[in-house]
Amino acid sequence: MSLDALADRLREFAAARDWGPYHTPKNLVMAMSGEVGEVTELFQWLTPAESANAMADPKLAADIADELADVLLYLVQLADVLGVDLIKAANDKMDRNEHRFPKPGDVTG
Amino acid sequence: MSLDALADRLREFAAARDWGPYHTPKNLVMAMSGEVGEVTELFQWLTPAESANAMADPKLAADIADELADVLLYLVQLADVLGVDLIKAANDKMDRNEHRFPKPGDVTG
Amino acid sequence: MSLDALADRLREFAAARDWGPYHTPKNLVMAMSGEVGEVTELFQWLTPAESANAMADPKLAADIADELADVLLYLVQLADVLGVDLIKAANDKMDRNEHRFPKPGDVTG
Amino acid sequence: MSLDALADRLREFAAARDWGPYHTPKNLVMAMSGEVGEVTELFQWLTPAESANAMADPKLAADIADELADVLLYLVQLADVLGVDLIKAANDKMDRNEHRFPKPGDVTG
Repeated sequence: MSLDALADRLREFAAARDWGPYHTPKNLVMAMSGEVGEVTELFQWLTPAESANAMADPKLAADIADELADVLLYLVQLADVLGVDLIKAANDKMDRNEHRFPKPGDVTG
Repeated sequence: MSLDALADRLREFAAARDWGPYHTPKNLVMAMSGEVGEVTELFQWLTPAESANAMADPKLAADIADELADVLLYLVQLADVLGVDLIKAANDKMDRNEHRFPKPGDVTG
Repeated sequence: MSLDALADRLREFAAARDWGPYHTPKNLVMAMSGEVGEVTELFQWLTPAESANAMADPKLAADIADELADVLLYLVQLADVLGVDLIKAANDKMDRNEHRFPKPGDVTG
Repeated sequence: MSLDALADRLREFAAARDWGPYHTPKNLVMAMSGEVGEVTELFQWLTPAESANAMADPKLAADIADELADVLLYLVQLADVLGVDLIKAANDKMDRNEHRFPKPGDVTG
C-alpha cells in the first residue's frame, strides 16, 4: 500500500467527521510535533544500546509502532493539505545528500 | 515508489558512509525531532490562513518540501532500524481510529 | 524564589532517588522535548484567539501551568548538569537581539 | 536577576517592535518548540558520555548556552502572555512529585 492510498484514507476519514476546518497546515504541524514528543518520551531514559533493543519488549514495541504510526499519519495529512509529494521530496533530498556527502573514495561526486 | 524502496536507498546511503553506528533508535528519534523543529519554525509566525496558503510562496514552498522530506527520511530510517512496518502500523491505527471515532450517524461502530 | 533555588531543589530531589545516572544532558534534552510536546498538544487545535483565552478554562489552565512547569524543571536541570547560567545566557542573548533588531527610529543601534 | 525581570525586559522589547500581535500563546508554543528542536540538533549524534562533556568544546558550549537561552526566552514570554507564574507552577509540581515519588526509605510520604 502506498502513501497515496493512506492519504486517501485519511482524507475520507477527516471529511466524514467534518474535521477539515481543524486541519490547517499550522495545526497539523503542531499535531505532528506532539506525536514526535510522544515517541521521544518512549526513548528518553533508554541508553542507545537499550534503544536498539526496544522492540524486544512487546508492550514497548506496540507503543513504538503506535506512536510512529501517529507521526506518519499527521505527516501524510500535512503533506496532503499542502500539496507536497512526500516521496518525490524525499528522493530529491536524497539526490542532494548524495552530492553533498560523497561516498568515501568517490572522486566523481 | 514505495517507502520500502526509500528505506533501501537510505540503508545503502548510510552503509556506504559508515554512519550505521550513529543510527541508534535514540539518535534517530532526536534527529527526526530536530527536523520537526525546523518545520515548526517555518510555520510559527503564520496565521492559520497564511499557513493554508504557504505553498504560494516559491521559496517557502521549497523549504517546506525540503523539511517534510527530512522528517520522512528520519522516520523511515527509525522504523527500519526498529523493524516497524510503517504502512501497516498506520493502517492498524486507522482501524482503531475508525472504531474510536465513529462517523456521525454510524450506529454500527 | 530564584532559578538557583529551584535548581538546588531539583538536584536534591534527583540525588535522593539515585536518578543522577539517568540525567545525562542527552536524556534531559529528550525529556524537555517530550514535555514541550505535551504543551503543544494542549494548543494544537486551538485558533490563535482561543489560545489567547486558554486560561479562562480552569481545567485547561491547570494543565497548561503543569506542563509549562515540567518544561522549566527539565530546562533548569539540563542547564544545571551542563553548568549553564540560564539567566545570564538569556540576558546575553537579549543584548544581542537588541543590537540585531533595533527599535524603529533608533539610529544608534 | 529574576524571571520577573526577564519577563519585563521581553515585554518591553516586543512592545517597542510592535511584535505583540505575533505573540499569541499558540505562536509562542511553536517558537519554543522550534528552539527545543535546535537544542536537540546539538545533542542528537552525541553519546550520553559525549553529551556530559559537551561544554568542554568552546564553540559547542556557546551554541548550547545560546539555544537554552532561546528556550527560556520563549518559555518566559509564553508564561507571561498566559499569566502563569512559572516559579510557583514549578514548585507546585515539585510538591506533587515529592509525594508521587517518595524517597527510598521514606515511610511518611
